[in-house]
Amino acid sequence: MFVYVVMYRTSTLMRLRLLEQNFLYEHLRHYYKTLNPNSNFRAIIGLRLQSICKLHTMALIDTAATMIFTSSSSSSSTARLLLFNNTKLHKFPNTISNFRRSTSLHFGTSSPTSRTIVTHCSSSPASAIQVNNETLATVIDGKRVAKDIREEIAVEISRMKEEIGIVPGLAVILVGDRKDSATYVRNKKKACDSVGINSYEVRLAEDSTEEEVLNHISKFNDDPSVHGILVQLPLPSHMNEQNVLNAVCIEKDVDGFHPLNIGRLAMRGREPLFVPCTPKGCIELLHRYDIPIKGKRAVVIGRSNIVGMPAALLLQREDATVSIVHSRTKNPEEITRQADIIISAVGQPNMVRGSWVKPGAVLIDVGINPVEDPECARGYRLVGDICYEEASKVASAITPVPGGVGPMTIAMLLSNTLLSAKRIHNLR
Amino acid sequence: MFVYVVMYRTSTLMRLRLLEQNFLYEHLRHYYKTLNPNSNFRAIIGLRLQSICKLHTMALIDTAATMIFTSSSSSSSTARLLLFNNTKLHKFPNTISNFRRSTSLHFGTSSPTSRTIVTHCSSSPASAIQVNNETLATVIDGKRVAKDIREEIAVEISRMKEEIGIVPGLAVILVGDRKDSATYVRNKKKACDSVGINSYEVRLAEDSTEEEVLNHISKFNDDPSVHGILVQLPLPSHMNEQNVLNAVCIEKDVDGFHPLNIGRLAMRGREPLFVPCTPKGCIELLHRYDIPIKGKRAVVIGRSNIVGMPAALLLQREDATVSIVHSRTKNPEEITRQADIIISAVGQPNMVRGSWVKPGAVLIDVGINPVEDPECARGYRLVGDICYEEASKVASAITPVPGGVGPMTIAMLLSNTLLSAKRIHNLR
Repeated sequence: MFVYVVMYRTSTLMRLRLLEQNFLYEHLRHYYKTLNPNSNFRAIIGLRLQSICKLHTMALIDTAATMIFTSSSSSSSTARLLLFNNTKLHKFPNTISNFRRSTSLHFGTSSPTSRTIVTHCSSSPASAIQVNNETLATVIDGKRVAKDIREEIAVEISRMKEEIGIVPGLAVILVGDRKDSATYVRNKKKACDSVGINSYEVRLAEDSTEEEVLNHISKFNDDPSVHGILVQLPLPSHMNEQNVLNAVCIEKDVDGFHPLNIGRLAMRGREPLFVPCTPKGCIELLHRYDIPIKGKRAVVIGRSNIVGMPAALLLQREDATVSIVHSRTKNPEEITRQADIIISAVGQPNMVRGSWVKPGAVLIDVGINPVEDPECARGYRLVGDICYEEASKVASAITPVPGGVGPMTIAMLLSNTLLSAKRIHNLR
Repeated sequence: MFVYVVMYRTSTLMRLRLLEQNFLYEHLRHYYKTLNPNSNFRAIIGLRLQSICKLHTMALIDTAATMIFTSSSSSSSTARLLLFNNTKLHKFPNTISNFRRSTSLHFGTSSPTSRTIVTHCSSSPASAIQVNNETLATVIDGKRVAKDIREEIAVEISRMKEEIGIVPGLAVILVGDRKDSATYVRNKKKACDSVGINSYEVRLAEDSTEEEVLNHISKFNDDPSVHGILVQLPLPSHMNEQNVLNAVCIEKDVDGFHPLNIGRLAMRGREPLFVPCTPKGCIELLHRYDIPIKGKRAVVIGRSNIVGMPAALLLQREDATVSIVHSRTKNPEEITRQADIIISAVGQPNMVRGSWVKPGAVLIDVGINPVEDPECARGYRLVGDICYEEASKVASAITPVPGGVGPMTIAMLLSNTLLSAKRIHNLR
């Protein structure tokens, strides 16, 4: 058994440059586990030694290799380090082997593709070596899950209609002409139609008064055919958002943003009437993919009232050990790297790099960020908070953007509306 | 400048045995900072090498020393490692010096006492070396702070009486004959008297009905001379605590346990009417001791509705990066050890050991746990969740038990009652 340390230049492995030693060990162990311990294999451990070539790094690589082989059951195991930059090699003459080129390198378990990587070293000319691609994370298919949920909801609604002759109703209030808001509202209406929820829409001009909005809310509060009321945010700046949202009666607050709901969500032994849609969708994805939460370390990045904070409270309710990382956090990478489950909701494209992710972690990406891309017809494409390309090589599961959390939000809105109708009509 | 690594056997330093490397660095840096960088000093870094004497440990010590001296401004600094077990020394012949015994070792800055420590090593017989004791943490004197706050409240109340002829009123409802509850209620009454708050007390028999309690709450809700209502918990088991607490009108809920209050506490941009007394007291202690919270790592141990959860929300409001550790957390020591601020509220005597604490951390101990002690007149004494003896040698500040958070809870109840009266009467 041999461990070779190979410097190569894929963007994936360059992340190791920034790693703490603890993470390096974990990383090495992770790779080790993916290899068949009974075969006479060689592992590749990539380090961009040009950047980190310091005395202590080499000592650490050596230590790491020793640790791996100490924990291995094979008594004949040997650690060999293959370093592509030998300027400091003389510092540890006894423990670090001299440069040797590897010709056949197996990496990961079952990935079908392989790619050619060019390595550079000071003791030999650049050489091309063949490595298998890394095992990629399971893609958490929010689109499919949301579709399943919509189908389940449709079944329940037709049962409800049959049994008591009532279908759930959702009222949406849209103020102003924001294009994105109009799109959201249109999508919500479409989703309601698809499952059999009646939707009621009120569109008010940008210069409407707060009182007009409050009047409409009040009417919907009293309307027995409406089970959920949704005020599309943001409201025009001349309105007090808090006043408007507080006017929605708590039994119809399908958004779940009422402080009383949030308070109940935070408290043990209390039950919220509604759980906010996006964080509920995140947890639902974990459940549907059988990802255990209890006892896991979870990091929520972002602490908004709409996603981050309620997501943290939900994870806590499921017995995760939760940390919230936010703009004032001094070492977000370090903390995030400890997480078994990461939920990111900050709105920063590609902020969470591969180096932030513990091998095997589960990543839920709430961010939907447009970035310029002249190759796209619209001139931009949507990316998440998590750098998918890097993180998907480290994580065990990840939501894509788009097609991850996005479709779940509306599915959960439908679910909350159905829940409300069932509660109001004392069904099951 | 020299760094010596000395193995010795105090219980305090044996904790290093379990440390992660990252923590080791931090530890070393911490010690380094406590020494005068301009003098020709020697630092002691304690490691129980018998337990951890492995190749990688030495590499890490070496790395650590290198890092420390790289970050030091002195160009003439040298790292010297003094190892008391040299079985593996040959592995790093160039970087680790051979065994040398130190005779004068300075440790910490200003501690007056010193003690003798026996060291063991394989290359020389056991020897006695003299080290100064560690610097002890600042004791956060909750009793004194609570007294200050009571005095401030008394001044405000007499001003209020002068200006509008009204004094705050606090109503307490006690059901049953629990001795501890009776004591708490008596103490609250006494504290009210001391600052000039009118207290109203209702005592009901153990077998009273829930309705009777609700009737009393309703009367106090309507009574304009009552500004705060407190139902002493726990209630007899035949009553629904949630129903009873929900009956207290939110404007008089000085305990701050109403879900609406908790929801507002959790939400950014919202303000709770009242903050629960014990967590409010914890944060007040930090403020009064000028301990910065913003950007700090905070760990709250315990997630009760009464202390742990609201304490976490409060720390979060002050821009700390908060993690909540609870009974389902798999590695509480490891997480707790990352914290700059620890608030412990679990009710487990001495659960948080010295090894759980990062050097320089601030410790707020909410636990008040009786442990048997035949030497005490009562047969028991009170200890906190944090092992004071060990932790006070590592922390920079710590609350004692008793005399730490305890006295703050009642002070904050008085503060909330005053706040309520001022709000109801539109004062400032």
